[in-house]
Amino acid sequence: MKTMLLTGFEPFDGEPVNPSWELVKALDGTLVTQGDHQARLVAVQLPCVFSRSLAALDAALQQHQPDIVLAVGQAGGRSDLTLERVAINLMDARIPDNDGAQPVDVPVLPAGPAAYFSTLPIKAMVAAMRAAGVPASVSQTAGSFVCNQVFYGLQHRLAGSEVRGGFLHIPYLPEQVARLANGAPSCSLETMTHGLLAALLAALATQTDLAVTEGALH
Amino acid sequence: MKTMLLTGFEPFDGEPVNPSWELVKALDGTLVTQGDHQARLVAVQLPCVFSRSLAALDAALQQHQPDIVLAVGQAGGRSDLTLERVAINLMDARIPDNDGAQPVDVPVLPAGPAAYFSTLPIKAMVAAMRAAGVPASVSQTAGSFVCNQVFYGLQHRLAGSEVRGGFLHIPYLPEQVARLANGAPSCSLETMTHGLLAALLAALATQTDLAVTEGALH
Amino acid sequence: MKTMLLTGFEPFDGEPVNPSWELVKALDGTLVTQGDHQARLVAVQLPCVFSRSLAALDAALQQHQPDIVLAVGQAGGRSDLTLERVAINLMDARIPDNDGAQPVDVPVLPAGPAAYFSTLPIKAMVAAMRAAGVPASVSQTAGSFVCNQVFYGLQHRLAGSEVRGGFLHIPYLPEQVARLANGAPSCSLETMTHGLLAALLAALATQTDLAVTEGALH
Amino acid sequence: MKTMLLTGFEPFDGEPVNPSWELVKALDGTLVTQGDHQARLVAVQLPCVFSRSLAALDAALQQHQPDIVLAVGQAGGRSDLTLERVAINLMDARIPDNDGAQPVDVPVLPAGPAAYFSTLPIKAMVAAMRAAGVPASVSQTAGSFVCNQVFYGLQHRLAGSEVRGGFLHIPYLPEQVARLANGAPSCSLETMTHGLLAALLAALATQTDLAVTEGALH
Repeated sequence: MKTMLLTGFEPFDGEPVNPSWELVKALDGTLVTQGDHQARLVAVQLPCVFSRSLAALDAALQQHQPDIVLAVGQAGGRSDLTLERVAINLMDARIPDNDGAQPVDVPVLPAGPAAYFSTLPIKAMVAAMRAAGVPASVSQTAGSFVCNQVFYGLQHRLAGSEVRGGFLHIPYLPEQVARLANGAPSCSLETMTHGLLAALLAALATQTDLAVTEGALH
Repeated sequence: MKTMLLTGFEPFDGEPVNPSWELVKALDGTLVTQGDHQARLVAVQLPCVFSRSLAALDAALQQHQPDIVLAVGQAGGRSDLTLERVAINLMDARIPDNDGAQPVDVPVLPAGPAAYFSTLPIKAMVAAMRAAGVPASVSQTAGSFVCNQVFYGLQHRLAGSEVRGGFLHIPYLPEQVARLANGAPSCSLETMTHGLLAALLAALATQTDLAVTEGALH
Repeated sequence: MKTMLLTGFEPFDGEPVNPSWELVKALDGTLVTQGDHQARLVAVQLPCVFSRSLAALDAALQQHQPDIVLAVGQAGGRSDLTLERVAINLMDARIPDNDGAQPVDVPVLPAGPAAYFSTLPIKAMVAAMRAAGVPASVSQTAGSFVCNQVFYGLQHRLAGSEVRGGFLHIPYLPEQVARLANGAPSCSLETMTHGLLAALLAALATQTDLAVTEGALH
Repeated sequence: MKTMLLTGFEPFDGEPVNPSWELVKALDGTLVTQGDHQARLVAVQLPCVFSRSLAALDAALQQHQPDIVLAVGQAGGRSDLTLERVAINLMDARIPDNDGAQPVDVPVLPAGPAAYFSTLPIKAMVAAMRAAGVPASVSQTAGSFVCNQVFYGLQHRLAGSEVRGGFLHIPYLPEQVARLANGAPSCSLETMTHGLLAALLAALATQTDLAVTEGALH
């Protein structure tokens, strides 16, 4: 029995909810099975605070000793579930975090490498979500806010181990857009849950990722 | 007991489904209640064919003698449920319809007025959808394809009567975008159904529309 | 020698310039020639004020007795030069005008028809702009702010006469987007001027518009 | 007297021109001055071919021994001049290159680091472009096509030297969008040239970049 750690964030940017936490908390304790593969899902909330997010991640890794980690975050304005390709060693906060900090052009880890790639089979996961009827794609940037910081910190911690890690950005919930009335795309919790489970099963069962393009011209 | 006629379209543009028909057909026969107001919902499919759509609409009006009519159509690329403000007396087909016809700059009704406004309380309906947690807005154009033709034809038939009519454009379903992989926004059938019912109840209970702006600068 | 009246608006929405006035004022007094056709261009500024815009338009029509009128307005967020198809009998102001008025769901003309179509050869004009290397398209909605009010008022005044009229919406200038830093598209004054002159010559020389689609599915 | 090497690409993706080459070739041989700083601009064209782009870059570096290098590429669909933040060690070609090659998930340099950051003062350059009235911003991804490959290869070659390098992505030219009729944003060559010169002068005169955010939430 493997353990898959799912992290979600607390609300930020004035929102009362964060879809990433709504999504993963409902799966806490769930068992998932794909062929011979079986895993237990564990959900942990991370603060949207540069100075505390990675300590919370460390505690979760220590406590749950996962085989696979997928960090999830809100990407307000995106229309589908996007698996991030790469985390960069940079914090450049467009808005203050939940503690009021707003680092500009500061590395996540001063002596760290410039970037880490996802070690999850992101193309197999995208294909599995689409096959499940859920819009999904690969993203080439996780931004430069706390999401990217956590993704970078996660991949740094997992580097050299057999534990695989990655990051999923998700749209607003419909209720958020209904309140904000900003015309942004959204995705229901049911659709996202359906997609996430398909993606997790693909991650569990896939060793060598699919060789299909999800590239961007720019 | 009032009757609310809901129309949806058959699939077009190469798609195997049309979300407008998926949405309304599941509500056929449903009773809805708001305060003292009660209505029975009837769903009818219309062909996506300029030369036959209005005859099918006529048959439905004749058979069901509705008090309120809401025609629904797919607006692939939009991110929310949009109540149309106005129908124009023009057909300019960007693609051929399901019979291969592609009229360019032809009026829907040669001697008809240039446009008809919706006679539904579109702002109360938008407010009700948002209050129900469903992204919604007013649109200032229904395009120039079969949706606009049906909307224009509907309002022309209802002009002078006490029957109120309007048009709702809806996003792709998630399964469509998953297949097309075109990055378009989508909305689940559950979310759309929840929103549509809220909108219909608002239409049933509202005589004078809300005086709140849903205007566009351009 | 014909006269073509071009109107532009004063700045609004907090902007120090309005590209529509920058565009047309530089052409005031210009002579344009296409084959046997020749016209003198006259530029007039209109206030971005619901209660005064049409009086200013009336004065300009009275003074210049034009053969062709093209009203021009800023459409911040659009990426190309868009010839409007239709003006609707409605004011629904998303923001206050320059006098602080914000009408909601009020007709431009209480007893007027629901809409007027452009009487310019909009497809020939779009084709001419593209042939000149300038991005252009037909728009199915002019919004519900002062631009639409002026377009509606113009077409109402010209109805039944031989004078042809229409409306052109244009993007932000680069300098506006550089200041706003909002990521909106823009178009240089040089490119817009080049496109406008091509469009005006097409309007001058075209009696029967091109039968090519510029329709919208929704 | 310093030397600034500007590279542009040959046309690709079926286009007859590439705005990046149109932009830089016109500046070949130009002298620019900012305070005590002076530089000569040199323009070189690179093939849009994974297997030959870096050899062409090497030849240009060898021949011109530049102090500053700015590679420029077309980003069809973007609306402003975007200075790239980071190049990643990955090729994932959404379309074939000009030799028909379409690598998927192949590193640019098998033993290279995951990414390189720009070593140009990108925020000072963005600020200078905006001050010159030209829309500009920082981009967090250069994609995964030949542009990113050249940017990565450039930064790898310059690593450890005092030569600074970076990448600028630019919109379509108006003439491209007029032909494609795809509704994409565009920018005139004049506006882009004006912005590029302002950016180059800022690069020449700035040692320590501005500490202002140009971050992205996702």
